[in-house]
Amino acid sequence: MRILVVNVNTTETMTHGIGLQAQKVAAPGTEIVALTPRFGAESVEGNFESYLAAVGVMDAVMRYDQPFDAVIQAGYGEHGREGLQELLEVPVVDITEAAASTAMFLGHKYSVVTTLDRAVPMIEDRLKLAGLDARCASVRASGMAVLELETQPERAVEAIVEQAAAAVEQDHAEVICLGCGGMAELEAKVRERTGVPVVDGVASAVTIAEALVRMGLKTSKVRTYAPPRPKRITGFPLPSA
Amino acid sequence: MRILVVNVNTTETMTHGIGLQAQKVAAPGTEIVALTPRFGAESVEGNFESYLAAVGVMDAVMRYDQPFDAVIQAGYGEHGREGLQELLEVPVVDITEAAASTAMFLGHKYSVVTTLDRAVPMIEDRLKLAGLDARCASVRASGMAVLELETQPERAVEAIVEQAAAAVEQDHAEVICLGCGGMAELEAKVRERTGVPVVDGVASAVTIAEALVRMGLKTSKVRTYAPPRPKRITGFPLPSA
Amino acid sequence: MRILVVNVNTTETMTHGIGLQAQKVAAPGTEIVALTPRFGAESVEGNFESYLAAVGVMDAVMRYDQPFDAVIQAGYGEHGREGLQELLEVPVVDITEAAASTAMFLGHKYSVVTTLDRAVPMIEDRLKLAGLDARCASVRASGMAVLELETQPERAVEAIVEQAAAAVEQDHAEVICLGCGGMAELEAKVRERTGVPVVDGVASAVTIAEALVRMGLKTSKVRTYAPPRPKRITGFPLPSA
Amino acid sequence: MRILVVNVNTTETMTHGIGLQAQKVAAPGTEIVALTPRFGAESVEGNFESYLAAVGVMDAVMRYDQPFDAVIQAGYGEHGREGLQELLEVPVVDITEAAASTAMFLGHKYSVVTTLDRAVPMIEDRLKLAGLDARCASVRASGMAVLELETQPERAVEAIVEQAAAAVEQDHAEVICLGCGGMAELEAKVRERTGVPVVDGVASAVTIAEALVRMGLKTSKVRTYAPPRPKRITGFPLPSA
Amino acid sequence: MRILVVNVNTTETMTHGIGLQAQKVAAPGTEIVALTPRFGAESVEGNFESYLAAVGVMDAVMRYDQPFDAVIQAGYGEHGREGLQELLEVPVVDITEAAASTAMFLGHKYSVVTTLDRAVPMIEDRLKLAGLDARCASVRASGMAVLELETQPERAVEAIVEQAAAAVEQDHAEVICLGCGGMAELEAKVRERTGVPVVDGVASAVTIAEALVRMGLKTSKVRTYAPPRPKRITGFPLPSA
Amino acid sequence: MRILVVNVNTTETMTHGIGLQAQKVAAPGTEIVALTPRFGAESVEGNFESYLAAVGVMDAVMRYDQPFDAVIQAGYGEHGREGLQELLEVPVVDITEAAASTAMFLGHKYSVVTTLDRAVPMIEDRLKLAGLDARCASVRASGMAVLELETQPERAVEAIVEQAAAAVEQDHAEVICLGCGGMAELEAKVRERTGVPVVDGVASAVTIAEALVRMGLKTSKVRTYAPPRPKRITGFPLPSA
Repeated sequence: MRILVVNVNTTETMTHGIGLQAQKVAAPGTEIVALTPRFGAESVEGNFESYLAAVGVMDAVMRYDQPFDAVIQAGYGEHGREGLQELLEVPVVDITEAAASTAMFLGHKYSVVTTLDRAVPMIEDRLKLAGLDARCASVRASGMAVLELETQPERAVEAIVEQAAAAVEQDHAEVICLGCGGMAELEAKVRERTGVPVVDGVASAVTIAEALVRMGLKTSKVRTYAPPRPKRITGFPLPSA
Repeated sequence: MRILVVNVNTTETMTHGIGLQAQKVAAPGTEIVALTPRFGAESVEGNFESYLAAVGVMDAVMRYDQPFDAVIQAGYGEHGREGLQELLEVPVVDITEAAASTAMFLGHKYSVVTTLDRAVPMIEDRLKLAGLDARCASVRASGMAVLELETQPERAVEAIVEQAAAAVEQDHAEVICLGCGGMAELEAKVRERTGVPVVDGVASAVTIAEALVRMGLKTSKVRTYAPPRPKRITGFPLPSA
Repeated sequence: MRILVVNVNTTETMTHGIGLQAQKVAAPGTEIVALTPRFGAESVEGNFESYLAAVGVMDAVMRYDQPFDAVIQAGYGEHGREGLQELLEVPVVDITEAAASTAMFLGHKYSVVTTLDRAVPMIEDRLKLAGLDARCASVRASGMAVLELETQPERAVEAIVEQAAAAVEQDHAEVICLGCGGMAELEAKVRERTGVPVVDGVASAVTIAEALVRMGLKTSKVRTYAPPRPKRITGFPLPSA
Repeated sequence: MRILVVNVNTTETMTHGIGLQAQKVAAPGTEIVALTPRFGAESVEGNFESYLAAVGVMDAVMRYDQPFDAVIQAGYGEHGREGLQELLEVPVVDITEAAASTAMFLGHKYSVVTTLDRAVPMIEDRLKLAGLDARCASVRASGMAVLELETQPERAVEAIVEQAAAAVEQDHAEVICLGCGGMAELEAKVRERTGVPVVDGVASAVTIAEALVRMGLKTSKVRTYAPPRPKRITGFPLPSA
Repeated sequence: MRILVVNVNTTETMTHGIGLQAQKVAAPGTEIVALTPRFGAESVEGNFESYLAAVGVMDAVMRYDQPFDAVIQAGYGEHGREGLQELLEVPVVDITEAAASTAMFLGHKYSVVTTLDRAVPMIEDRLKLAGLDARCASVRASGMAVLELETQPERAVEAIVEQAAAAVEQDHAEVICLGCGGMAELEAKVRERTGVPVVDGVASAVTIAEALVRMGLKTSKVRTYAPPRPKRITGFPLPSA
Repeated sequence: MRILVVNVNTTETMTHGIGLQAQKVAAPGTEIVALTPRFGAESVEGNFESYLAAVGVMDAVMRYDQPFDAVIQAGYGEHGREGLQELLEVPVVDITEAAASTAMFLGHKYSVVTTLDRAVPMIEDRLKLAGLDARCASVRASGMAVLELETQPERAVEAIVEQAAAAVEQDHAEVICLGCGGMAELEAKVRERTGVPVVDGVASAVTIAEALVRMGLKTSKVRTYAPPRPKRITGFPLPSA
């Protein structure tokens, strides 16, 4: 099966990292195709950029001209998943929801550790709408910007590990969801320091997408995610460069 | 003061209607400027189109080159308000929230009557995120598409009045919010048939925007709606035609 | 239009201050009439006194013999608003709800800073019943009694500013509602110290009352706020002195 | 021990009936004293009358000049309980809460059947504030006014039984709380028709008040129900006739 | 009347203590019969042991061959109450729920102080299912194991008193429920140190069971707690030794 | 990898059916071992039987003497999952939660269709505790007993299909979870009649268990699911026959 993993920002190196992460957990026979939007911000850290990402991701998927079996939206706390669900029949999995859903099988409460403080209410809102917030102990920010995860990896790891430990000790989280990606040693360090399971959004999303495909399950089309009605649209799909 | 009222779809006649509706309730001295997005769908009836609208509305506002004091996003149940709040210091008022907020001063519970059934979960989600759902008795669909409100006004009025009556009689709504616009006689008919106050989103939003401006209140910039950080953005603002 | 602003306690100087505050924000053409109850406590700081206030306020309004267009109940976290809504057709606006409703247009979460700790659960209960609590980050007490706001203004301002800052820094409030009135410099100081918008209940309520009147909206009479049924009442309206 | 059972309305025959009901369930050695307010409505069916009742009940209790061990406020869905709790150290039990609390030991969900439709939101609000609403299946109105329970007992019983049956069959209630008092045969008829336990508010409240007294428990005075602070009060206690 | 009070663990000395506690508060004429399960753990401190207790308690009650009027399950936060309710017509009272229900008549918020930290989520879950969590300020652990309450009573009292004080001062609890039993001086010490009412689960449960019996109320049999359908059961009741 | 799928009742034919269902969806290389408890009821349809099942399932798993990688508890709405989580390090997946969690990726709201009406509150309670209830539109009963699914398959299918259709049409479910197992043609018929995706609990649970194992995730041991403390246990594991 082929799964599209769509980055929410326009930074190709990040897309590459996400693709590797996805491929690592994928079952034999699963092909991961990582896509980068042609529209939007180099990193997504707020609602403005997240709304651009919603359009950029939909554009990237609509432009992809090969068959595929599922789509993963690889942004933590971002807008857009419902739009993809209207446009597609194949399952669409958001990594924020995938991680939360997975964490809930492993402990009584989970926490999310993310990048900047401004992302916290966005993630809280996505979890609330997804109905996955009841067992969320906290969403905590490391204070590191998305791009700093790449430029200052050591400081980033330290800041994230510290917040994960605080989530376990002060907020009674029993599982940590990493709301920021791409650092090989991060999972191991958080697990080691806190003693709790660490869930990665991209990996979770891959296993969920594969499972849905394997069970033959597709997005329900009876109401919320019915296909868009035929009508005049201006400017989308985005013009080719 | 000058208030921008931004239509969420690209249909100019609707923009015109919304502008008139807004101007009618505006205080003396308030100038209403109604804007039409250059991007998106001719009518917004789902998440895909709503995400396009979010970008189209932000583009329309950023492109407007005169000073203004507040912005009204004139779409019921649509995405995008938070993006505008990041981009602007002046208040941004969404008509879904304005209507609910106003209705809650008039009765114990309110209902929303909207167009198509597929809009119902979108409106429910917006009210939930806005924290304005606790006293919402129901969101009901008339089954009329947005553009049919213009092409089949009589049938539309009848269908909407019927759902409003059901909301009062079966769901115990004490106030009705009209989640669809532009029909002069609609308010009067719903009020007459149900005996309850009828709240229009655009009118409510104008009074709220005026009030915020008069009190000197602006969007809080300390966290969720802090200005976007400087970064490389591709494709936005949208290219000029 | 004429708006009655009813103090909840019997202290005339407070009524005077509230009246000035209301007039300051009122639109040209709005006449503010500030009323003092003939019954109840010199300051309202608990449920016993608040229930007296409910009756005192209804009495003051019923006794007022000129036409009026709306009523504002100017007490933070007090009982009684629903009784007025039954007795009147014109809109009734409670300042606790007006402030919360206004704050929610300006930031993701708001906090209330009030006087004594014992008022905190009362305000929390009013916000919960009003369905305006979902985005309330906290209700905090300054520890100052109502009358101390007048006798020790400097200490009061300091104590309130301190709690407002804690609400922003610790509770993630993005807007502050002042749950205590009458100090000219308070708003400015809180805004300066915290960097967030500061909402005053009386001012918000005036703009909301004006808006409802302008839109021709009145209290719904179909169920909860239907007029009292004719029956034998003992002792009310309260006997003339 | 002596328990004051305070009627919320000024109709002496109702007070008498409530007193008999209370005495019937009281333990040997418990003296029931039934009080009628000197202030307020002959029947309480709305917020205006309920706020008068709050003051009338507090007045009746403060005027009672013998020692007592607990107070029961015998009105369904009425205001005022918190005021009494501030004024007294002995336990105060509201019959709305007593019935709900008792019903929850007997079935998974309970419903309340009350008099007029306008009482429904009042009862719902009291249960929500009391934190006893999570297992409330419904509050249903029989459409009978309070005084009609006395003047048209047969029709009243029929209407109430019908709503109780609907609560069990349609709302999945497993227990019925009677939100209206004084009819000897009512409990038996509802139980017979529905097959579920029927809880009477006054009886429940008597057993709870006795239990609290027997365990030596009194109202907590540390915060919400601390005694009113000394201050100038006008008009209360109400003047002697 | 005869009330069975069933210990959840197999430690006879604890059963004895619980029986004494129950008898002390029981009305004249109430006979307390304390039962010890023949199956399960010597102390119950987790879900595994709690599920064993559920079966052990049902077995102990089914094996009791004299008539009885009510059953109290004397374990804090344990599983099993619903099973008893299916097997019996007489009322079944769980001490976790009895304490919470009682506390809510005495203050605006209550906290529970229990033994080990691992019991906290179990108690929170029981209160949530019982619909008694809305006014729960916190559940706090003293860090003492169940059996240490007997072996190190002084240290246990100190640890519990400390958490009770923190609940009042930091979590705004106005009443404390003791989620651990059997120490004579504990209640007095907590009350003295915190100044708030202290509710004991076993005592509360006895008064509630007596009240239900006195009012002739039994478990509803229409749905959730209908008797088990006749079917083949293996291994239960447990084999006689 | 080897996954234990544990039936909650003692009916071997059901265990066999569940095992086949699990094996059908399992990945190549996954070995399914289906276990039948030696203790409990031939079918589980209520709390009493469900508590027996909790112990029977724990016993069956503890007695299994080969290595395994995950456990699935194959009962809809049953007790016991938390006990297994304490006893084991490998992941434990409950089919009620697996189905809900899966359904939430496919539509805005889901409904569960189960057997007898008495199972409805049990399933609702499990979903509430699991924090998976926010997007549950309804839990509906077909009125068929568990064993009738085998003895009257045609009537059962008809009854279940009817409730599924009602869930979609009346409750706005967009996905159906089958809360009862083992009928080959059931899924197809429900899907055909309603047009929505149909989720099977056992199949979902297998894919989730496999995913957790593949990601190397285990049950968190820091708090709620810490291993039982060493202590004296009577009667468990259950005696060998």
